[in-house]
Amino acid sequence: MAQRIPDGRGKPGATRQQIERRERFERARRESLRPAGDGPIIMYGWHTVTAALKNPARRLRKLLATDNAARRLAEEGITPRLAPELVRPSAIAERLTPDALHQGLYLEADALPSPAVESLPAQGVVLVLDQITDPHNVGAIFRSAAAFAATAIVTTQRHSPDATGALAKAASGALEFVPLVGVQNLARGLAALKQNGFLVVGLDSSGEADLATLPLRAPLALVLGAEGKGLRQLTKETCDAVARLELPGAIKSLNVSNAAALGLYVASRQLLSA
Amino acid sequence: MAQRIPDGRGKPGATRQQIERRERFERARRESLRPAGDGPIIMYGWHTVTAALKNPARRLRKLLATDNAARRLAEEGITPRLAPELVRPSAIAERLTPDALHQGLYLEADALPSPAVESLPAQGVVLVLDQITDPHNVGAIFRSAAAFAATAIVTTQRHSPDATGALAKAASGALEFVPLVGVQNLARGLAALKQNGFLVVGLDSSGEADLATLPLRAPLALVLGAEGKGLRQLTKETCDAVARLELPGAIKSLNVSNAAALGLYVASRQLLSA
Repeated sequence: MAQRIPDGRGKPGATRQQIERRERFERARRESLRPAGDGPIIMYGWHTVTAALKNPARRLRKLLATDNAARRLAEEGITPRLAPELVRPSAIAERLTPDALHQGLYLEADALPSPAVESLPAQGVVLVLDQITDPHNVGAIFRSAAAFAATAIVTTQRHSPDATGALAKAASGALEFVPLVGVQNLARGLAALKQNGFLVVGLDSSGEADLATLPLRAPLALVLGAEGKGLRQLTKETCDAVARLELPGAIKSLNVSNAAALGLYVASRQLLSA
Repeated sequence: MAQRIPDGRGKPGATRQQIERRERFERARRESLRPAGDGPIIMYGWHTVTAALKNPARRLRKLLATDNAARRLAEEGITPRLAPELVRPSAIAERLTPDALHQGLYLEADALPSPAVESLPAQGVVLVLDQITDPHNVGAIFRSAAAFAATAIVTTQRHSPDATGALAKAASGALEFVPLVGVQNLARGLAALKQNGFLVVGLDSSGEADLATLPLRAPLALVLGAEGKGLRQLTKETCDAVARLELPGAIKSLNVSNAAALGLYVASRQLLSA
């Protein structure tokens, strides 16, 4: 039986473990609410941290590792530019939300520089995210973008999650491979892409064309809207075409990261066979 | 400035709002830890709850709705079999984790009956999940399964999240369309599918064949492994073939729900054109 201690708020039933977890949650929540640009970004988890350690462009500030993780780094021949502080797992856990799988590695680092949308090379596929706010979805989209060798991800600077914490974990190292381009105004960002020769195609369940049969060409920008809201009206109007993914079943829309992966697959196939 | 009140643990800095959020988190966490089969399942969110209300096979126990949500139900011509209790949004929020988007609807209902794996019709595509534990991923997989008209999802009874809460929310109504088949032993479940004529194909980044070029036929069972661990050895050995998704970029594996969506897409195309 876990030891029960009074917590001073008339709730004698909480265990020490529950109180610690509650405190950890609050601390992590405050951390995650810190405004963007204020200090380093947080990374944890094996793939996320080791990819950052291997990226010479990533400026490292603080690295914590458990004994096990440090041993595994050595076994895999990874020599961090910054010597890790060896800590117990709890020293990492207490910096994160209770559901964070840190796998013994915690890194504070600077964000990578964000290129200007006008400077993107006119080749391949760029993903554009129209106010997608869920960090797990945006992280998974980064991962798929890296898997399909997309050139960049363009998002609005506001109404987008920072490339840190849960987003970085879900990206599983992809932040080191796919540059994040922040724009103030999405319609102007899309106009700049069109100016540079991009075909701009929105993905929306209300789209008239099936993406798989729409003639695509590189350079291509695929635009994805938020869950529920979809693409904003002005975004739709700025696209050269709005397409849907053909879904034969009872539900006609996918989770946005699933839609992004499918869009990247369909576009890649067409561009490769063109 | 928010009112700061002492919380009795030497931390005078917490606001009343922070303390309430902390208490709500703990309550919701305890709820989510309740053992399976003990009482009704929890659903919230517009798509999830309205799909359940429209499913005559779903036995309803308790429905809470805000004034706004009740009005929207009426506007959309949805007449629940169970009269909703009209409540304030906070009465729903306090039953859920702080990050839960309930959209004014909360439902307690019975789980749908789980068919036996031997009784599945020998047609179309079945997804098999080998110990995928993240409820958001499993929910998104249900949603994609419904979008691609998959026949069922097979999981192990242990090491799988219950079809409730965050899983049901991420499924976005798909639980009403895709039956969940729980098996005690996955290898025996796969053997039963093979016995009934299914081609059993595992998806794993180590797979030798590219799924898009592997000859597929219906009935087909696509088997997905957990993030990181992948398919277990015995699962791989029970498959007729193990295939990978061809990924041209720097990262060679996708989020598991993204991999499921792509697997369903690739398989559907092949089966339709066959």
